[in-house]
Amino acid sequence: MSDLPPESAQLEPLIGTWKGRGHGDYPTIEPFDYLEEVSFSTIPTKPFLVYTQKTQRAETGAPLHTEAGYVRSVGPGRVELTIAQPTGIVEIHSGTIEDGVFAFVSDRVVTTPTAVDVSGCTRTLTISGDELTYVLAMEAVGEPLTKHLTARLVRS
Amino acid sequence: MSDLPPESAQLEPLIGTWKGRGHGDYPTIEPFDYLEEVSFSTIPTKPFLVYTQKTQRAETGAPLHTEAGYVRSVGPGRVELTIAQPTGIVEIHSGTIEDGVFAFVSDRVVTTPTAVDVSGCTRTLTISGDELTYVLAMEAVGEPLTKHLTARLVRS
Repeated sequence: MSDLPPESAQLEPLIGTWKGRGHGDYPTIEPFDYLEEVSFSTIPTKPFLVYTQKTQRAETGAPLHTEAGYVRSVGPGRVELTIAQPTGIVEIHSGTIEDGVFAFVSDRVVTTPTAVDVSGCTRTLTISGDELTYVLAMEAVGEPLTKHLTARLVRS
Repeated sequence: MSDLPPESAQLEPLIGTWKGRGHGDYPTIEPFDYLEEVSFSTIPTKPFLVYTQKTQRAETGAPLHTEAGYVRSVGPGRVELTIAQPTGIVEIHSGTIEDGVFAFVSDRVVTTPTAVDVSGCTRTLTISGDELTYVLAMEAVGEPLTKHLTARLVRS
């Protein structure tokens, strides 16, 4: 039992601190490997999880990316996701939950004047026991929706 | 000296954990008082600050609001702000820094299908030594840009 209100219990499989490795790729960049730590945590009585994420370059441990946001339960099998990135990008997503798969499709991605042009993305998280795998595909800099990140994390 | 790279040193006055009280008001709601904790922190070598915030109802201590995001230095006297809220709202802001005043005006506020309709906001933070005061004005639910929150926090 978590601190989630009963009507948001479908978020429970995400709760925890997850660590592992990922791989990044995109038509416009050099492929790279990263270490990642993700956390989904509760605030008592609130129908959402607090999401934080940070990655480090696998070879050197140098800080790479970070982002933060919230996963909100909005109905049976239905979720929303908000994300802010320090690179001037924010995202809102609508999502579904089915058989441990949280599948988010961006409703809108909005960027500041100095940010890289990103116009859409999908984030698919699959929970299987204490394993979280995800695939992030991105529509950016003139490229169609293309796989950008994949990672496998373990609940610690 | 902080972990900020030299070209982002203008963000330094924000760094710290800030605690205090605030007051909320809007034409469509009952006025309310809150306790608040705000943090702006660095990640070594990165040109931005990590922003987190949480409030509690002043009378009961019950969790009220929380949000997270990033303040990024983009040039002398120029900053950008990204914010995600668990209520299905994300914001991108352009801002200026002058005499300890960080003045942000939203470029875009975007909301999920189930969120309250917010179309714009301004966030003005004034740092004077170890005191942070802010005013947040919001354009929402058909109301024009109207003062919504004011608070006075102290660096701890």
